Amino acid sequence: MSQYWSRIIRELKPYIPGEQPKENRYIKLNTNENPYPPSPRVIDAIVKAVDSTLRRYPDPNCDALKQIIAVYYGLNKGNVFVGNGSDEILALSFISFFKQSLPILFPDISYSFYEVYCGIFEIQNIRVPLTEDFDISLVDYEQPNGGIIFPNPNAPTGKLLSLEQIKKLLEQNGETVVIVDEAYIDFGGDTAVQLIGEHPNLLVAQTFSKSRSLAGLRVGTALGSEELIEGLERAKNAFNSYPLDRLAITGAVEAIRDEAYFRATCKKVMDTRERTVAALSKMGFSIIPSVANFIFIKPPGIRAGELYTRLKDDKVLVRYFDKPRINEYLRVTIGTDAEMQTFIEKTAKIVGVV
Amino acid sequence: MSQYWSRIIRELKPYIPGEQPKENRYIKLNTNENPYPPSPRVIDAIVKAVDSTLRRYPDPNCDALKQIIAVYYGLNKGNVFVGNGSDEILALSFISFFKQSLPILFPDISYSFYEVYCGIFEIQNIRVPLTEDFDISLVDYEQPNGGIIFPNPNAPTGKLLSLEQIKKLLEQNGETVVIVDEAYIDFGGDTAVQLIGEHPNLLVAQTFSKSRSLAGLRVGTALGSEELIEGLERAKNAFNSYPLDRLAITGAVEAIRDEAYFRATCKKVMDTRERTVAALSKMGFSIIPSVANFIFIKPPGIRAGELYTRLKDDKVLVRYFDKPRINEYLRVTIGTDAEMQTFIEKTAKIVGVV
Repeated sequence: MSQYWSRIIRELKPYIPGEQPKENRYIKLNTNENPYPPSPRVIDAIVKAVDSTLRRYPDPNCDALKQIIAVYYGLNKGNVFVGNGSDEILALSFISFFKQSLPILFPDISYSFYEVYCGIFEIQNIRVPLTEDFDISLVDYEQPNGGIIFPNPNAPTGKLLSLEQIKKLLEQNGETVVIVDEAYIDFGGDTAVQLIGEHPNLLVAQTFSKSRSLAGLRVGTALGSEELIEGLERAKNAFNSYPLDRLAITGAVEAIRDEAYFRATCKKVMDTRERTVAALSKMGFSIIPSVANFIFIKPPGIRAGELYTRLKDDKVLVRYFDKPRINEYLRVTIGTDAEMQTFIEKTAKIVGVV
Repeated sequence: MSQYWSRIIRELKPYIPGEQPKENRYIKLNTNENPYPPSPRVIDAIVKAVDSTLRRYPDPNCDALKQIIAVYYGLNKGNVFVGNGSDEILALSFISFFKQSLPILFPDISYSFYEVYCGIFEIQNIRVPLTEDFDISLVDYEQPNGGIIFPNPNAPTGKLLSLEQIKKLLEQNGETVVIVDEAYIDFGGDTAVQLIGEHPNLLVAQTFSKSRSLAGLRVGTALGSEELIEGLERAKNAFNSYPLDRLAITGAVEAIRDEAYFRATCKKVMDTRERTVAALSKMGFSIIPSVANFIFIKPPGIRAGELYTRLKDDKVLVRYFDKPRINEYLRVTIGTDAEMQTFIEKTAKIVGVV
């Protein structure tokens, strides 16, 4: 604590990201990275862009990237915002749309950064409890609010809200912005982007960190009505004019272009997920049905915290949240088939089912 | 304007960066980029880093980069913060240190982003007039304040405050944070980093965009006492955990390592600046003495705005600020010798001194 800190900074509880160990000795299933590398075409495109033009600022508007994302989703460039990872986009969204007199709503079990943004931007919020089965119950969101945000599929549960349900939510909540955080949508969900035309208050956030294998490059996008995108641009241009560097723009553009690679790696992850779920079910794990690149599982006959520690000792890193309601679960990122086989074998030994 | 925007976003006047034309037809002397490419070692290091690890998140703490910057300045890693360009660092600094009950102080002629940050973070401010000669007068800063910030050398004037003067300012202002924005310090000024040990309220911000030729990569750093750096880390971890991507970290590390290249390019820019100043003086221009990689000049016998337009028509892009007190000046980035020769010749024709 320092006399020079503002009150906000003193009171803040910063977000704690998953461990990023510097050594390579772990099978790393803790931060939902893609087990497959970026498309070879992405690698080639970036390598070609590493040249003397790095002395020049990037395009502050990222027009090339916005344009290709717009075409991909059948939207206009004015419906597309891009940022330094979806975290930056969410932060700017909180300032742009959620700083209102009424509290915003989000699930009690959800991406824990939402609460942190509320702290730094002084936004009141109500954490709406999920049902016993970790479902979002729409009636609970029928209350005056300054905005609504939730991940779809939800994290860390992996559970999906259907497009029908999102539509219903948008119909019952037309006065404030609804942000659907689709970080994991490409692993089996239907994007809400198709609802943008009818709902000017819908913002859909996505990231290149998961399904596009580019966590190391820091690119996210948000899609919505032109008025929402313009609001985000205003916030961005009051914060940092050039958040995406030249190489990130280049890599992201090529990642969208290589649709076949994207489809193939997403399918591999989904197939591995189903095999992993089958194996863990046999072992007696309770498993929340996931359409993400991770699974949320409750081990049989051992505390989740202990399984986390014993797996870590055995060089497998998963994510454990020591929080009410979810402290008997582990979140496990889907790796390659080989990685998951090792995870399953080591887990079987620990839980005593060999 | 949209019903969904927060009041802050409605009232905001976003920063407008200099033009970044997509075509290459201009001699581009408008955004203070370095005319020389990044070090060949930087290019090599980045190319080598473009690989499958891009699927993984970068180190959220950027330890490797902080460490090498710390060694470079004879500080500890805990004295170093890094961010997505110095603009992001300044934004986080405004939240961390300047959101106070008293207004912050900065020069009336200065980096225009400061006022924008005050808008988005709702910070009161007093714009303290420079003297007639565009100098910062220390007595004007002897007033209760929530913090002080100024570029050194100042932008767009290029004028430097001496270390003695900065020391005096720090001595008269120990209760709030003083940020010295050293974006242009490497072109002839002395960094205030050496004053950090004695002044826990001093934060020095620097960028890799100018003297390190890496505007396209988005890297900045801030140096200060551990308590100030910790405050910045708290803000960063409540905003975006991974603002620097893997390639930016790699390139920035190598840029610090190649000290010889850095020294050589800075010297070339300074030499060209002096030659340019000499030529323009002969033509009758008024020139503010600059220790930056740009000059601030008042043309003889022609309005600055007209000279800007005529140069642009002639494919030379400089920066014109249509603002009180400085609307008779142009800010001209120092390019290569060849570029400046062309600029001088075209300018001579326009002002009628051939």
